[in-house]
Amino acid sequence: MKINIAGHYITKIGELWDKSLRDLLKEAIDGAIENSQISPKTIDAVFVSNKAAGSFENQLHLGALASQMMKGNPPAMRIEGACASGGIAVVAAQMALMSGQYKTVLVVGVEKMTDVDSNQTTQILSAAADYKTERGSTFPGLYAMLAQAHMREFGTTRVDLSAVAQKNHVHALDNPNAHFHKKFSLEQISESMLVADPLRLLDCSPISDGAAALVLTTRNLKNKAKILGFGQGQDSLDLVGRKKLTELKATKVAAQKAYLQAKIKAKQIEVAEVHDCFTIAEIMAIEDLGFFSKGKGGKATTAGKTTYGGKIVINPSGGLKASGHPVGATGIKQIAYLAKLIEKGEFKLGLTHNVGGSGATAVVHILGK
Amino acid sequence: MKINIAGHYITKIGELWDKSLRDLLKEAIDGAIENSQISPKTIDAVFVSNKAAGSFENQLHLGALASQMMKGNPPAMRIEGACASGGIAVVAAQMALMSGQYKTVLVVGVEKMTDVDSNQTTQILSAAADYKTERGSTFPGLYAMLAQAHMREFGTTRVDLSAVAQKNHVHALDNPNAHFHKKFSLEQISESMLVADPLRLLDCSPISDGAAALVLTTRNLKNKAKILGFGQGQDSLDLVGRKKLTELKATKVAAQKAYLQAKIKAKQIEVAEVHDCFTIAEIMAIEDLGFFSKGKGGKATTAGKTTYGGKIVINPSGGLKASGHPVGATGIKQIAYLAKLIEKGEFKLGLTHNVGGSGATAVVHILGK
Repeated sequence: MKINIAGHYITKIGELWDKSLRDLLKEAIDGAIENSQISPKTIDAVFVSNKAAGSFENQLHLGALASQMMKGNPPAMRIEGACASGGIAVVAAQMALMSGQYKTVLVVGVEKMTDVDSNQTTQILSAAADYKTERGSTFPGLYAMLAQAHMREFGTTRVDLSAVAQKNHVHALDNPNAHFHKKFSLEQISESMLVADPLRLLDCSPISDGAAALVLTTRNLKNKAKILGFGQGQDSLDLVGRKKLTELKATKVAAQKAYLQAKIKAKQIEVAEVHDCFTIAEIMAIEDLGFFSKGKGGKATTAGKTTYGGKIVINPSGGLKASGHPVGATGIKQIAYLAKLIEKGEFKLGLTHNVGGSGATAVVHILGK
Repeated sequence: MKINIAGHYITKIGELWDKSLRDLLKEAIDGAIENSQISPKTIDAVFVSNKAAGSFENQLHLGALASQMMKGNPPAMRIEGACASGGIAVVAAQMALMSGQYKTVLVVGVEKMTDVDSNQTTQILSAAADYKTERGSTFPGLYAMLAQAHMREFGTTRVDLSAVAQKNHVHALDNPNAHFHKKFSLEQISESMLVADPLRLLDCSPISDGAAALVLTTRNLKNKAKILGFGQGQDSLDLVGRKKLTELKATKVAAQKAYLQAKIKAKQIEVAEVHDCFTIAEIMAIEDLGFFSKGKGGKATTAGKTTYGGKIVINPSGGLKASGHPVGATGIKQIAYLAKLIEKGEFKLGLTHNVGGSGATAVVHILGK
């Protein structure tokens, strides 16, 4: 069953000290409804994606909070799957639509991350790792291990990592809502402050505030983007349990399911928003999603194959790296951004890829018309 | 579509200092699968209900954690709707089954609440209220206001409140997994320590550790309990936004939807597990669910109409009050307990009622064969 993306909206992403969690939630809900031109009364339910407002803002029960901002106080639920919360919330919404229980639903993702200090942020975000076997680790530290493994096995270089960041910062110049609008040279990226070897500051996605929403419906709408297929994959929560550190099994599983459901092959995809929480994550993603063979993702990026004029456009929004990573909103804003490009006719077939933790959860959506 | 409850399991509920979040999660998953006699391989997805492990245990991403405990590492999501997380997770699972995406799924609810001190617990639980308009409030305080309103408008008395607690503590004697196995006299309850006037210590459900799980399937199974209908209602997150303080609108909405879907009337229900987080909550629930007319719930309880030999058996498990309230598990254990009674043939038609916050979310399920 094709799900129609009737409306989409992304707030400004960044350090939004003048906007509260509620402000962002309301702006995204109202924005997506307005964009859909659907009567607010016809929305049957709301699905909220959020990772950690319970810790960042001492506010759980965001479903009820979102519902009371909407006409008719519709049934609500909050979905959490670490940084993949957005992708999973869309899956939950799709299944609710496919069940026939609802005809039109709203999915909204939000995260307000900058109201606490950076030590607290590190602590809160680490709750998505395994608190038993990975205590004391941080996400830059975990992804640094993946980068080390990839560089050792495939010869991926410092320049390859920097090429990801450079490209995504260039792409973000075209995205008015992006967290950053600033070009960096390969040298600037390669020489930025070391965070967790080999990852440097400019290899890392930022801590962002932001929200995004979608109105999804089973009603057939012309000229709107559609979800043609989806897949979700899982893997061990900790790195210790993984068979390989040079790929994310969850991504491969999710992609296989999504391609099968959409009856599409990887090579047909023209554009993708992938989960580049760190530069190495984008390199692994474009391999695991089948766009480039394993080990070739870094070189392909350095050769310009992942931007306009190349083989496929990866992260036209700027990705998490440059458009920002308000975690609960990320998976929703990926779909919202791509839906807009497809609606405009800039691309025909696109893919989104949202990852939780260091790869324990991955969700892939395929979008077309 | 009727959903079959193929398997159910509830752990011991209580202050389980020798069991971790993981221990409880694994025990419930394995227990429900064993009870179902279904091959673990045939489980297509897992839905995890949890309110606040992110704060209690610094562990988010419980979907991934549950999935890796299961054969085949199935797709997972965590659902949160404060103390109604369990009921909502079952709704999400039902819709996933109704969508045709999955045939058999596992729903597990867990909460590990006793690893932090009671001040932290109060802070963590208050995240389900409205942090903006209800800052500084506690749940006993909010429910005390509801009790005050109900007593003033309908003449509900101290004895009526105590009668709820007395009955539920008697019922819990038959539930081997209950948090408490202790009878109290009306006097003991009425004279227990004052928490928030008029609510006393023995009006309040306890802080409990525990887990519960269900295996749900669209495959038709003889002799198993079935979900015949469900409904979810919402209301303002804070009390300020409510039209009335003597009823929960969310419960009424949820019940109406559930009765309609199941084609059942309130008077046909023989047994119900209702959300008695405080004694006043049970009195309001049995009115809002249609078992007694508004204002008569307290008197009906004192008259013995809500126990064996009365009009309807309310909270045969002991309810949240005496069987315990491990919040993320509560909505699941209500269904698991009732499914067992219906499977055994002790009752034909039952209802569960799970509430989030001070009534912003309510979920009702109707069970039969």
